[in-house]
Amino acid sequence: MAGKDIALGPGKVDLLEAIEETGSISAGARQRGLSYRRAWNLVDTMNHCFKQPLVERVKGGKGGGGAKLTAEGRRILKGYREMETKALKAIGPEWKTIQKSLKPQK
Amino acid sequence: MAGKDIALGPGKVDLLEAIEETGSISAGARQRGLSYRRAWNLVDTMNHCFKQPLVERVKGGKGGGGAKLTAEGRRILKGYREMETKALKAIGPEWKTIQKSLKPQK
Repeated sequence: MAGKDIALGPGKVDLLEAIEETGSISAGARQRGLSYRRAWNLVDTMNHCFKQPLVERVKGGKGGGGAKLTAEGRRILKGYREMETKALKAIGPEWKTIQKSLKPQK
Repeated sequence: MAGKDIALGPGKVDLLEAIEETGSISAGARQRGLSYRRAWNLVDTMNHCFKQPLVERVKGGKGGGGAKLTAEGRRILKGYREMETKALKAIGPEWKTIQKSLKPQK
């Protein structure tokens, strides 16, 4: 189950969101519990798989610059979240059936 | 992105299907490109997270026995695949938009 490098999935989307919130790849990685190297690789994969990059460096400032989502990155993030909402709504009954089959969480 | 041990996800469901097809955990693992240890751990997690086990050992026979899905395992597998179909149908337009934003696969 270690991530094959597909273009986009829940882990990458969570990272995009964290980069947008924190303004840097390293802080985003920290928020998601990823190593900087792992986060950087995920960003690199996304930037290479999409026609336009999703994350860009921000130069200057006190901390020596950070990173932010491009307009394309924000569009993809929004589209993915909308997809999740629709998917969850669609699978409601089956999802509940599976949930009921699980032992209660401790 | 290394799998946190949640009860069920695409990797575990693919493994269930492979066990059903091959009649053993080791052959199912091979089919999915997992080590036997990893597959066994995934099965163990599922069997412990659900109220009823999803996979059971089959005793006897030439090869010294194998494994198969329980009735509950088959029910969960079927429910999950139905969920996927519904989810994919629901997210059609957004999914196409994201697909179009990707570079063509080589």
